[in-house]
Amino acid sequence: MTYQAPIRDLMFNLEHLSQWPQIVSLDKYSEIERADAQAALEEFGRFCGDLIAPLSHDADTAGARLEGNKVVLPKAYEKAYAQFVDMGWQSLAHPAGHGGMGLPRAVGAAATEILNASDMSFGLCPLLTDGAIDALELSGTDEQKEIYLRPLVSGKWSGTMNLTEPQAGSDLGRVRCKAEPREDGSYSISGTKIFITYGEHDLSENIIHLVLARTPDAPEGHRGLSLFLVPKYLVDENGHPGDRNRVNCVSIEHKLGVRASPTAVLEYAGATGYLIGAENRGLEYMFTMMNAARFAVGVQGVALSDRAYQHALAYAQERVQGQGIGLDPEQVPTIIGHPDVRRLVLRMRALVEGGRSLSMAAAGWLDLSRNGTDSTRAEATPIAEFFVPLVKAFCTERAIEVASLGVQVHGGMGFIEETGVAQFYRDARILPIYEGTTAIQANDLLGRKVLRDGGQTARRFSAMIAETETTLKAGGPKAQDIAKCLGDARVAFNASLDWLLDIGSDNLRSAFAGSVPFLNLTGTLAAGWQLARGAHAAEIELEQRREPEFMAQKITTAQIFARHVLVECESDRARIISGASCLLDETSQL
Amino acid sequence: MTYQAPIRDLMFNLEHLSQWPQIVSLDKYSEIERADAQAALEEFGRFCGDLIAPLSHDADTAGARLEGNKVVLPKAYEKAYAQFVDMGWQSLAHPAGHGGMGLPRAVGAAATEILNASDMSFGLCPLLTDGAIDALELSGTDEQKEIYLRPLVSGKWSGTMNLTEPQAGSDLGRVRCKAEPREDGSYSISGTKIFITYGEHDLSENIIHLVLARTPDAPEGHRGLSLFLVPKYLVDENGHPGDRNRVNCVSIEHKLGVRASPTAVLEYAGATGYLIGAENRGLEYMFTMMNAARFAVGVQGVALSDRAYQHALAYAQERVQGQGIGLDPEQVPTIIGHPDVRRLVLRMRALVEGGRSLSMAAAGWLDLSRNGTDSTRAEATPIAEFFVPLVKAFCTERAIEVASLGVQVHGGMGFIEETGVAQFYRDARILPIYEGTTAIQANDLLGRKVLRDGGQTARRFSAMIAETETTLKAGGPKAQDIAKCLGDARVAFNASLDWLLDIGSDNLRSAFAGSVPFLNLTGTLAAGWQLARGAHAAEIELEQRREPEFMAQKITTAQIFARHVLVECESDRARIISGASCLLDETSQL
Repeated sequence: MTYQAPIRDLMFNLEHLSQWPQIVSLDKYSEIERADAQAALEEFGRFCGDLIAPLSHDADTAGARLEGNKVVLPKAYEKAYAQFVDMGWQSLAHPAGHGGMGLPRAVGAAATEILNASDMSFGLCPLLTDGAIDALELSGTDEQKEIYLRPLVSGKWSGTMNLTEPQAGSDLGRVRCKAEPREDGSYSISGTKIFITYGEHDLSENIIHLVLARTPDAPEGHRGLSLFLVPKYLVDENGHPGDRNRVNCVSIEHKLGVRASPTAVLEYAGATGYLIGAENRGLEYMFTMMNAARFAVGVQGVALSDRAYQHALAYAQERVQGQGIGLDPEQVPTIIGHPDVRRLVLRMRALVEGGRSLSMAAAGWLDLSRNGTDSTRAEATPIAEFFVPLVKAFCTERAIEVASLGVQVHGGMGFIEETGVAQFYRDARILPIYEGTTAIQANDLLGRKVLRDGGQTARRFSAMIAETETTLKAGGPKAQDIAKCLGDARVAFNASLDWLLDIGSDNLRSAFAGSVPFLNLTGTLAAGWQLARGAHAAEIELEQRREPEFMAQKITTAQIFARHVLVECESDRARIISGASCLLDETSQL
Repeated sequence: MTYQAPIRDLMFNLEHLSQWPQIVSLDKYSEIERADAQAALEEFGRFCGDLIAPLSHDADTAGARLEGNKVVLPKAYEKAYAQFVDMGWQSLAHPAGHGGMGLPRAVGAAATEILNASDMSFGLCPLLTDGAIDALELSGTDEQKEIYLRPLVSGKWSGTMNLTEPQAGSDLGRVRCKAEPREDGSYSISGTKIFITYGEHDLSENIIHLVLARTPDAPEGHRGLSLFLVPKYLVDENGHPGDRNRVNCVSIEHKLGVRASPTAVLEYAGATGYLIGAENRGLEYMFTMMNAARFAVGVQGVALSDRAYQHALAYAQERVQGQGIGLDPEQVPTIIGHPDVRRLVLRMRALVEGGRSLSMAAAGWLDLSRNGTDSTRAEATPIAEFFVPLVKAFCTERAIEVASLGVQVHGGMGFIEETGVAQFYRDARILPIYEGTTAIQANDLLGRKVLRDGGQTARRFSAMIAETETTLKAGGPKAQDIAKCLGDARVAFNASLDWLLDIGSDNLRSAFAGSVPFLNLTGTLAAGWQLARGAHAAEIELEQRREPEFMAQKITTAQIFARHVLVECESDRARIISGASCLLDETSQL
C-alpha cells in the first residue's frame, strides 16, 4: 500500500480548528473560499499519492550519493521534482505578488503534511525553500526580492539554511564562518557549514543558500552574526543562473534515515554573498525562518505518523494470525481482532489526529499573527509563539512513538526493510533533533514564553482550555468524559506552571531540569485540547445528522486520546515538581 | 569509545538481588564462591571489551550476505568466535557434567549482558545455542545428550530455534512443516521455516536445528506439534559432522538492525530429523526453551541499553556546546552541564540499572525454580514464571527508549551512522518483537500468570513489595522517598489487578484491551522494587562506610527511577481501568 491523503480530516481541521472564519476575513485572503482550499488539497493529494508516495521506498534504498562534487539523487526524483514545479505546488501558500497561489498558512500546512507523508526525503527540499522565501520576504531588500523570490516561489530554484558548523550546533554563538566586505557591496564568504539539507543537488536550476557568518569587526557570540544570501550560481543581469559561485559540496552524510535527502558539508571559499537586512542582526532574521521551519518540522512529524498509521492499519486489517479473544470463531481472524492490536492502531490514530489538530490550530494563529490587524496581531502573536515549540516537540517526539508502534503492529515483518515501515522508524528519528532539539524547544517554551512574561500567556492558554471544558460538559457522555480528562491535565499544567514560576525566580537549574517534561505536558495538553474542540464541533455536526460515521469516529478518537494520552500529563507534573532535586543531586557524580 | 563491562554493578546485583545466599546453598552450586563468579565475569568483560565490542560497528556495516547457499559473515567474526570457543565462554552457565563451568544462572545472565552489549549481532549465536542446550538437557534422550550436548556446550556447534513459517508467527497452531516417520526411527522433515536466527553460517562446525513440525496423524492446531532435532551435518559414528543434511538456506533477510546476524529462510526437503521427547508435545518443550530465550532477550535489552548509555555519557562529558544554565562561566561548558542533558543521561542510567536489577533478580528465582528442593521450587516457580514476561517486556521496550534517548544526547551527530549510536536504535527495535511480541508477553502475564490462579501470585508479588517499603521507611530520607513512590505504584498495581480480576470473569476483551498497559505497569513496578531493594542494601553498606561513592550513587539512581519512571504506573492504571471501553467502541470502525 502507499498513501492516501487524509483530505476529509484536513478539511475538518481547517474548518473547525484553524480559526478559518477569522482567516478568510483578513484582507490578504478575502478572495479565498473553503472550496478553493479543498480543491487544491484534493489535487495535491492525488499528485502526491500517485506520483510521490510510490517512490519513497526505492528512493530510500538508492539514497543520495556523492560523485566528485556532484550529488546524485534517486533517478525518479528528477521527474517528480520537475512535475512538482510544473504544477506550481511550491507556490501554494506564497503570496500572489511573487507568483504564488496565496492560500492561507493552514492550507499550506496541510499540503506540507501531504507531501512529507508521501516522501519525507523529497519533501525536505520544498520545505527549506519555503523557509528561504519567508526570510527574504520579511528581511530582503526590494532588489533581492525582485531577483530571487519569483524563481524560489515557482520552485525552479531551491533554498537552504546554513547555520551549523562542527563546533556550533545548538550554540550558534560559536559560528566562525567569515564574511569580508568587498568594494562592490557584496561580501566574500569563507568557512565550513555542516548538516546542510539539500545543500547540493541538481533538481533545481539554482540553490539559494542563506548563511550565518561574521563580519570582521563583529562582536563575539550571538550578537555578531549576520545573514547572507549566497547563490550556488551567481545570477546574471537577466536573472538567470550564470557563473558558479565559490561554494562546494565536500561530502554528504551517511545517515540513519531520510537517506534520499542529501545532507551536505559545504565549503565556502571566498564565495560571493549579499547581506540580508542589517549587519549583526542575522540571528534575528534566522529565527523568523527557523520558527517557520520548526513549525514545518512538526508538520513533518504528523506526516510521518500518518504514513506509519495508514500502513499499520492496512496490515492489521489483512494479516491473518490467531483468533481475537472473545470474538466469533467464524470471523476471519485478522490481527485487528486482537484487543492489543486494536489498542496500538487506535493509539496511533489518536496521536496522528492530535498532532494534526495541534498543528492546524497553530497554523491559524500564526497566520493571524502575521497578517492580522494590529489588534488581532497583538492577541494572536503570544499564542502563536507559545504554540511553535509545542508543535515542534509534540509532533516530532510522537512521530518516533507512532513509527515504532507501526513496526510493532507488523511484528517480525516490520523489522524487514522491504516491508517499508522500518524506514518510517529511521526517518522519524531526525525530527526531534533538527531545527532545534526538543531540549532547545523546551528552553524556548520555559525561558522565552513562560518565565519572561511571568506566565501571562500560559495562564491565558489554560483559561481557554477551561472554556472548552465548560462547553463540553454541556454535551454528551463522551464529551463530558473528555472534559474531565482535559480538566485533570489542565490542573497538572497549572500546578507545574505555579511551581516553575515560583522556583524559576531563584533556582533556574531546578526549573530547567523539568523543562522537557513541562514541554511534553504542555504539548500533550494542547493537542488534547484541540481534539476536544474538534469533538465539540463533531457533536454539533452530528446533531445536524451530517456525516455521522466520520463525526462519531472523531469524538471517539478524541476520547481515546483523553483516556490514553492525556493521562500522561500527571506523570510529567510529578517529574517537574518532585523530580528536579534528585536529578541535580551531586551523588550522581556526573 | 567502545564498552566497559559494568562488573561492579553486576556483582552488586548478584550479591544483593539474585538470592545469592540461597543459590549457593543449592547442591548444584555448593562449590561456587562469589570470587569465582567475579573472576569469570572480569575475565569475560576484558575479552568482550577488548575483542568483541570493537568489531560491532564494522560488522554492522558489512552485514551478513548470502552467496549461493552460503552465508558470509563479517570476516572478523570467524576469529572472534574461534576465540570465544577456545576460551570456553559458551560453557559458562552450563553443567559441569557436559563440560560446562557450572556457574549459576544469574552469573550466566551477567555474561549474556556483557556479550550482547559488546555486539548483539554476535551475541545472538551463543544465545540460541544456550536455548538448544536447555531444551536437550530437559527433554532429550540420553543418547541425544551424549551426542549433542558436549559440542554445543563447548560452542563448537551452535543451535537454532525453528518455529516461524510465513503463515505461522505468533500463532504456532498454523505450523505446517511435516515430519514423516522412517523405518529407522528417524523422521523426514519437509517445509519452510523463516526468521531463523543464525540458521546458516560457518562459524561453528555444525548447526543443530530444533524444529517444530507435524507428524502425519497429528491433531490440528497447537496440540499436534512435535519437536525435532535436525543437524546441518549428520553426525557420524565418531560423533563428528558427516554428510550434509537436506536443509538449505534459500535467502537471508535485509533487516533494520542486527545486520551482522544472519536471519535465514530454511528449506527442509526431506531432511533427517530426530524426535525430541514424545510426539505432539513439541510446543511444551519449545516453551521451556522459549522461556529461557525470552529471559535472555530481556537481558539483551539491558545490554543494548547499557551500551547506548555508556556512549551517551561519554559524549555528554566531552562535547563542548553552550554554557549550562546557572553554572560557573569559568567551567568548561560540556553538554552534561545542561539540566536536560543531565536528565536524559540519568534517566538512561536509571532504566539500565532498573532493567539489570530486574533481570538479575529473575535469574535467581529461575535458578531456585529449576534447581531447588521441592519446597524451594514450589515457592520459587510461580514468581519466576511471573517475572519472565516482565523481564522480556520491560527490558526490551525500555531498550528502544534508552537507545532513542542516546541518539538524542548526540544531537545531529547521533543521526550519522559513523557515530555508532544509530545502530543501537536500529538493533533495539527487534527486541520487543522476537521470542514473542510484547502483546504475547502481556497475554502470558494476564492470562496464564494472573487470571489463571485468581491473582494469587500477583498478590504475593504485591505483598513482597509492601515489605520492602516497610524496610525502606526505616531508612534515610531518600529511602523514605523511594518507599513513597513504590507504594503509590503498588497501589496502582493493586487497583488494576482488582479491576482485571473482576472484569476478566465475564468480559475478557475489556481485560485484554489493558493487557499491555498492565504488563508495562507491572514490569516498571518490579524494576522499581528491585532498585529499591538495592537502595536498602546500599544504605547498609554505607553505614559500614564501604564504597561510599558507589553506594550513594546506587541510592540516587533508585530515587531517580522512582521519581521519573515509577510515576508512569499511574497513567497505566488509568488506561487499564478507564481506557478499555473507548478502545472497544465500535464507532472507531475498525
